[in-house]
Amino acid sequence: MKRFLSRGQESAGIVTSDGESAQAFKVHKGMGLINHVFSEDSLKKLYVSNLGIGHTRYSTSGISELQNCQPFVVETLHGKIAVAHNGELTNAVRLRRKLMRHGVGLSTSSDSELITQLLAFTPPLENDDTADWVARIKNLMNETPTSYSLLLMHKDIIYAVRDPYGNRPLCIGRLVPVGDMNGKGKDNRETEGWVVSSESCSFLSIGAEYYREVLPGEIVKISRYDVQTLDVVPRPEGDASAFCIFEYVYFARPDSIFEGQMVYSVRRRCGQQLAIEAPVEADLVSTVPESATPAALGFAQKCGLPYIEVLCKNRYVGRTFIQPNMRLRQLGVAKKFGVLSDNFKGKRVVLIDDSIVRGNTISPIIKLLRESGAKEVHIRVASPPIRFPCYMGINIPTKEELIANKPEFHDLANYIGADSVVYLSVEGLVSSVQESIKARQENENHLKTNKSRVGKIGHCIACLTGEYPVELEW
Amino acid sequence: MKRFLSRGQESAGIVTSDGESAQAFKVHKGMGLINHVFSEDSLKKLYVSNLGIGHTRYSTSGISELQNCQPFVVETLHGKIAVAHNGELTNAVRLRRKLMRHGVGLSTSSDSELITQLLAFTPPLENDDTADWVARIKNLMNETPTSYSLLLMHKDIIYAVRDPYGNRPLCIGRLVPVGDMNGKGKDNRETEGWVVSSESCSFLSIGAEYYREVLPGEIVKISRYDVQTLDVVPRPEGDASAFCIFEYVYFARPDSIFEGQMVYSVRRRCGQQLAIEAPVEADLVSTVPESATPAALGFAQKCGLPYIEVLCKNRYVGRTFIQPNMRLRQLGVAKKFGVLSDNFKGKRVVLIDDSIVRGNTISPIIKLLRESGAKEVHIRVASPPIRFPCYMGINIPTKEELIANKPEFHDLANYIGADSVVYLSVEGLVSSVQESIKARQENENHLKTNKSRVGKIGHCIACLTGEYPVELEW
Amino acid sequence: MKRFLSRGQESAGIVTSDGESAQAFKVHKGMGLINHVFSEDSLKKLYVSNLGIGHTRYSTSGISELQNCQPFVVETLHGKIAVAHNGELTNAVRLRRKLMRHGVGLSTSSDSELITQLLAFTPPLENDDTADWVARIKNLMNETPTSYSLLLMHKDIIYAVRDPYGNRPLCIGRLVPVGDMNGKGKDNRETEGWVVSSESCSFLSIGAEYYREVLPGEIVKISRYDVQTLDVVPRPEGDASAFCIFEYVYFARPDSIFEGQMVYSVRRRCGQQLAIEAPVEADLVSTVPESATPAALGFAQKCGLPYIEVLCKNRYVGRTFIQPNMRLRQLGVAKKFGVLSDNFKGKRVVLIDDSIVRGNTISPIIKLLRESGAKEVHIRVASPPIRFPCYMGINIPTKEELIANKPEFHDLANYIGADSVVYLSVEGLVSSVQESIKARQENENHLKTNKSRVGKIGHCIACLTGEYPVELEW
Amino acid sequence: MKRFLSRGQESAGIVTSDGESAQAFKVHKGMGLINHVFSEDSLKKLYVSNLGIGHTRYSTSGISELQNCQPFVVETLHGKIAVAHNGELTNAVRLRRKLMRHGVGLSTSSDSELITQLLAFTPPLENDDTADWVARIKNLMNETPTSYSLLLMHKDIIYAVRDPYGNRPLCIGRLVPVGDMNGKGKDNRETEGWVVSSESCSFLSIGAEYYREVLPGEIVKISRYDVQTLDVVPRPEGDASAFCIFEYVYFARPDSIFEGQMVYSVRRRCGQQLAIEAPVEADLVSTVPESATPAALGFAQKCGLPYIEVLCKNRYVGRTFIQPNMRLRQLGVAKKFGVLSDNFKGKRVVLIDDSIVRGNTISPIIKLLRESGAKEVHIRVASPPIRFPCYMGINIPTKEELIANKPEFHDLANYIGADSVVYLSVEGLVSSVQESIKARQENENHLKTNKSRVGKIGHCIACLTGEYPVELEW
Repeated sequence: MKRFLSRGQESAGIVTSDGESAQAFKVHKGMGLINHVFSEDSLKKLYVSNLGIGHTRYSTSGISELQNCQPFVVETLHGKIAVAHNGELTNAVRLRRKLMRHGVGLSTSSDSELITQLLAFTPPLENDDTADWVARIKNLMNETPTSYSLLLMHKDIIYAVRDPYGNRPLCIGRLVPVGDMNGKGKDNRETEGWVVSSESCSFLSIGAEYYREVLPGEIVKISRYDVQTLDVVPRPEGDASAFCIFEYVYFARPDSIFEGQMVYSVRRRCGQQLAIEAPVEADLVSTVPESATPAALGFAQKCGLPYIEVLCKNRYVGRTFIQPNMRLRQLGVAKKFGVLSDNFKGKRVVLIDDSIVRGNTISPIIKLLRESGAKEVHIRVASPPIRFPCYMGINIPTKEELIANKPEFHDLANYIGADSVVYLSVEGLVSSVQESIKARQENENHLKTNKSRVGKIGHCIACLTGEYPVELEW
Repeated sequence: MKRFLSRGQESAGIVTSDGESAQAFKVHKGMGLINHVFSEDSLKKLYVSNLGIGHTRYSTSGISELQNCQPFVVETLHGKIAVAHNGELTNAVRLRRKLMRHGVGLSTSSDSELITQLLAFTPPLENDDTADWVARIKNLMNETPTSYSLLLMHKDIIYAVRDPYGNRPLCIGRLVPVGDMNGKGKDNRETEGWVVSSESCSFLSIGAEYYREVLPGEIVKISRYDVQTLDVVPRPEGDASAFCIFEYVYFARPDSIFEGQMVYSVRRRCGQQLAIEAPVEADLVSTVPESATPAALGFAQKCGLPYIEVLCKNRYVGRTFIQPNMRLRQLGVAKKFGVLSDNFKGKRVVLIDDSIVRGNTISPIIKLLRESGAKEVHIRVASPPIRFPCYMGINIPTKEELIANKPEFHDLANYIGADSVVYLSVEGLVSSVQESIKARQENENHLKTNKSRVGKIGHCIACLTGEYPVELEW
Repeated sequence: MKRFLSRGQESAGIVTSDGESAQAFKVHKGMGLINHVFSEDSLKKLYVSNLGIGHTRYSTSGISELQNCQPFVVETLHGKIAVAHNGELTNAVRLRRKLMRHGVGLSTSSDSELITQLLAFTPPLENDDTADWVARIKNLMNETPTSYSLLLMHKDIIYAVRDPYGNRPLCIGRLVPVGDMNGKGKDNRETEGWVVSSESCSFLSIGAEYYREVLPGEIVKISRYDVQTLDVVPRPEGDASAFCIFEYVYFARPDSIFEGQMVYSVRRRCGQQLAIEAPVEADLVSTVPESATPAALGFAQKCGLPYIEVLCKNRYVGRTFIQPNMRLRQLGVAKKFGVLSDNFKGKRVVLIDDSIVRGNTISPIIKLLRESGAKEVHIRVASPPIRFPCYMGINIPTKEELIANKPEFHDLANYIGADSVVYLSVEGLVSSVQESIKARQENENHLKTNKSRVGKIGHCIACLTGEYPVELEW
Repeated sequence: MKRFLSRGQESAGIVTSDGESAQAFKVHKGMGLINHVFSEDSLKKLYVSNLGIGHTRYSTSGISELQNCQPFVVETLHGKIAVAHNGELTNAVRLRRKLMRHGVGLSTSSDSELITQLLAFTPPLENDDTADWVARIKNLMNETPTSYSLLLMHKDIIYAVRDPYGNRPLCIGRLVPVGDMNGKGKDNRETEGWVVSSESCSFLSIGAEYYREVLPGEIVKISRYDVQTLDVVPRPEGDASAFCIFEYVYFARPDSIFEGQMVYSVRRRCGQQLAIEAPVEADLVSTVPESATPAALGFAQKCGLPYIEVLCKNRYVGRTFIQPNMRLRQLGVAKKFGVLSDNFKGKRVVLIDDSIVRGNTISPIIKLLRESGAKEVHIRVASPPIRFPCYMGINIPTKEELIANKPEFHDLANYIGADSVVYLSVEGLVSSVQESIKARQENENHLKTNKSRVGKIGHCIACLTGEYPVELEW
């Protein structure tokens, strides 16, 4: 699916269909950033109709190789299909063996090829003559509970699918008809259309409007002018949904909308909550630019301290080739930032960071601030410590690398050189995330709107607590 | 297999194995010439042991795409296999449907992926625990009679296979132990080894010696120090072998050895035979450089005329970008050659070409010679006219494009502007090719050596006569 | 000189000297960004000693061509010299004719080659045997009053020169000796050294400390361990210095220091001043990210309104290749930003911009905010309108393109769709810039420190008022 | 000048003029082969009229750098000039000092910049208002006797100049008017024009006809429709012309014409002469492909032995990256050739080479032939041994590297492993070169045509004998 964001920088691909023949796919894929992979020429060749799916890869499992580039295209008895996938299957190993035992050779280590072959492989249900892709998709969803958000293209249809736990995001945008500069031709249906994306932030830049999320377990059929729900595959009785909380904390762009709320707002609430949980006597509040800025503004506002910048990003960090001598080794992270020393000389600084994962970037920042005149440096982290690996699509360092699992964590302020350091509590994060969702749900209850389609709402906080939403298989 | 020749310029790939783990393949593939695809860096990464297979692709069927690059690697229940293939299956369409009906999605249009999945797919013969690759290979050979020369790598073994008709070439070379500059260490077995290639000409450039051909239908197992025949799958009763005669005429490098004879020698005999079939009163014999030179020398020698060059290759033909005006359009092929006019001014020239396929390059050459002073230009073609498509691995223009199928063919000399034009007869070509093979066979008969393994010897001349060695399926 | 900033993205070059031979320069230059121009390999070749000068080019006059890349190297009677130059000569045309009349062919249109040939050309003062670079530099400074900041390298000496008006910035940094991780070896003079740069912000990222500015008219000699003032060439009686005010407003990085003050602080003061000059009833203050943020924070603080972000930068703006249809044309600038609509829905927004030059980017931003729910949008611009061209090194659009010179300027709010729009006054800008300089000067007067070296302090505001610090020649 | 041949592979450049303004030159230059340097895009930008000069650089003096790329363009008082130069000045050092003493900084080490600045520098003869390029060119020719062939472009005129000794080649071709396919429009003067090139072989590939050589010392003015001799600068009394004999032996393409004769014919005569000087009992004559082929055919014909190929070129020699082990080191040159062993097994081979310079490539070839079955290998070299450096434009190895100056030369056959080795005599070479020139001259004498313009004819054989045509200066 279209996930043209910073996270997917490893490879990029687009497959287009002429919408008629099941053989006439155009494919262009390559390693690297989108702007590197696609030239004017390659885009022209792809431009066969107004139908296509794309993907940018952010490697979690699977080796970094061109073979692993998505979308995957295979020819089946019923013509070609193209599949784009975000997520990671929790029972991939078992499913791979199952397919190989049946005689299918797998050419990559990626879950996305696995899903594609599972869709191709599913024995024809009644006879050979019809493909019944919905039956095949449901079959797949019964084989593997999470995590995946999928796009499947066949002829002139795109199926958008989100796993029953809703672990990975997926949403739909609408291309409203446009007229000319004078507004004429706004009824021209040729300019209408639908787009699907992991993050809604991508819609604005192509002139589309946010329409709605694909629901957990939902199978949506998208054709030229229509968006149609074909089915909603339920979770096991009693299981809550499990949207990845890390998308709010770090991964998503601040202007994206998940579950009816803007990511920026959640992050600001985290900052406010942090000010309540861990206030501090200081002269100013600042941010590690740029991802922590919403939390920093929330913190400053809640505790009534002035907000000011103390660091500016150095956009032109050169690569260090030659003789990384003592001086350059000691510089470390400092090369990435400029210091606005006049803003904090002789002052007590509260510095908000969005997360401290390995703990090796915050420490030189603190050193930098002190050397430039900060009187005190208090660190407040707008998320809880990460302690456990993710098996559902987020690339988290090994347990051993996580600062929260190291002995130094017990005296963290001292280790990183801060006057104090406090993380947001798990409860604080969850309430910051769920506060407005619950408010809206209650409101909907009053209005007796259809809430049954989503069921019980929860979030995957496995990386914080080790409690995974489904059993992991090996 | 290693086919590092001019013919395979579309893509290149190498897969290496560490010889122990069935998972530890290293793969590097890319579009374009070898020197473009492989850098020092990529080769270093491939260098995990002394075991690997490579491939350069010359597209016949299948679109030109990275996906089609060989060798193909798939993971099976018994570990990874890598397959390199030269040839084209005559019953590919039926085999593709068979696989897809079984639920295997095919990700490319290439026969090579088809072969790889057929090898992976074959139901385990007795149980799951052993792979029995020889049984799988024989199964594959029973499914499809021709044409293929294959390398299959699994762990520390490479299987080399040639189809029962021997349509595509395949031969084995031997890396003899080397010592240092003073000859010391020549008994060092570490420097021994075996190589397999489509053409023997590649052996010299890596310091290997020609050892022998893989026989039609033969399955050879190649390990660190041994080459061992596992089986020879026979042809149907009465069928002769069908090595591609076009390899002799045009495709192979002149220093390659097929069926015990050097390609250069065959081409020279073709020139001699042509001099017998179509002599001409003239002052000199020359060549369209460079592939027709052996035939031209043979022709000149047989008819007692002096041989001299009339054209030299212009190695630095620029691309014509801007405004291909009348002048440049009229230049055409002339840009590719320099004219050695002093060598033929006022003289009658016999110009030998290796083949006239479409007929659109010889005509401007004749014009060029006449404008530069040639009194007469007689064309002699060292092969018969090509009239039929090839379905076994040679990329031949469509029937409509072949000059031999056009009306103009009936007055070809006039059409191309020559004083006369004569092709070699089919019989003349076949006898030039088979003459020394038959002599050797008779000799071997006298010596009662084992000739049964090869059976009746013939050659595929389908592109000349339309008689294909096996029935074609669609 | 080292000017490794965003402004100089057109080309980059480095010249190093081995410090002994006047012939042994190493040169590497190329078009494009530094990371594109320099590879590990090219840097290794440059690494002949610890002496060198570099340059990144931001084109003002002179065509964009490799030939124009700096530093310029020429061989003179006294060996090779390398020159890096920032600025633009106000009497270049006359100087070019003078040189050409003397018989020197000029190979580029750049002022930097002109300066280099003027330095080479100057007739030897007494005899041929000594170069006397200082005399030549003074000669050059007498020929052309402004604007230039220069580095001249010869053998083991670098001369740093700033024109008498100090129009372009130039400052010196100090590499303090470093020890190992334990602080040992801090007395190792090998790790000492000096660096010169247009902007002090570059020092931090190479581990250097800000030392001081080069004064207007000053010629500084930099050798291995010493920095020495050789001379200070005075301005004509009564002329004030004329440092470019646009460096404060827009051009420089916020963490750079000019005339003893941080650029960020000046920008914040501009925002505060703007709040005094043009207050507005509103619910929130925000910024056009990222350059207007200091002014926005200053404005918000001064008028007591909350500061919040309304736009986020879209870092992965794709190029639009195909069919820039009506939709994409209408998107325009919107593609560059994400909208944080929850932050301002239904609210009155004061949006601070750092400058409005052509007026074609602010208008779609306002439209975007309104469509996303802003009730009112008031624009406050933290600099005065630009009305005049710069002939001293800043690339400003033509007079016709400047919004302040268009008829629409008289009803600008209406033209750009804002509820109100107010620019900072020229006096407001000048006082924001000079406030702390004057305070410090007065303080120094009390302390009787040497103020004579700088003379009367002024700033070049020609682009705002049309009053140029020197007479322009054509 | 246009020298688009294999020899100039280091860099390439084109400068075009719109023919009206003296400022409107378009320039594109770059390192590497023409096809690498020029894209469709860059050529389009150059296409401003039908006037331009180009150059490909083959480095002799001067470092390999973009700065040294030709043509050189400089602006003078009288507008821009572009200069392309082939050759090397024998008094460059003195001229450089002269220019630098006058105050001109030289930005490269190339003679071509030196020539360009000398043309720009020459003091205006009477007044400033006219350039008088012919006077400047003659001035230059008086300053430096050899070696240079030059093109100078100014506005709509190109001046073609050859030094008085005629050391480097230069010839003129004519673009005859072309009509359409039916011959209509052949009187269209728009398609007429003139081209100048180092070698006539380049004319055919652009549809031009050979017209004539530029004479030694001649200054030719080329405009849209005319070619006009402006002057012929004479040599010192008694000096013969000194065209480089190495052009015939090795450097030029065989289809080029110098001094009225085709290079191929000269080479064939060298082979014939060699057969007379050094006959040998053998079974066949062959060539080291491809440059020695004309000589080999001449040798074979003269001594009545059959000619056959023994080596074929391996066009796809890979780079050897990894672990150049003993095997690959021993392979050496063998990688470049395929061996046609059936052609010489058990036979006595005479192998003709065009020159043996360092002696390190012929030795492995001989070894290869012997190992492949040659009974005897006799080497005949179609040129005399090279013993002295060239200071006039040919890149010859240092004296120490030349095999003819090594002790091993006295027993060369033994050293390279040949049964015998004989070089052509200097007299034999000179007579092969001059035979037909003298015949033609005598013929012209009878006809009383104007021979005075060329004067006494000789050739530069300095690399063979150490006698240089002019005194060398340092």
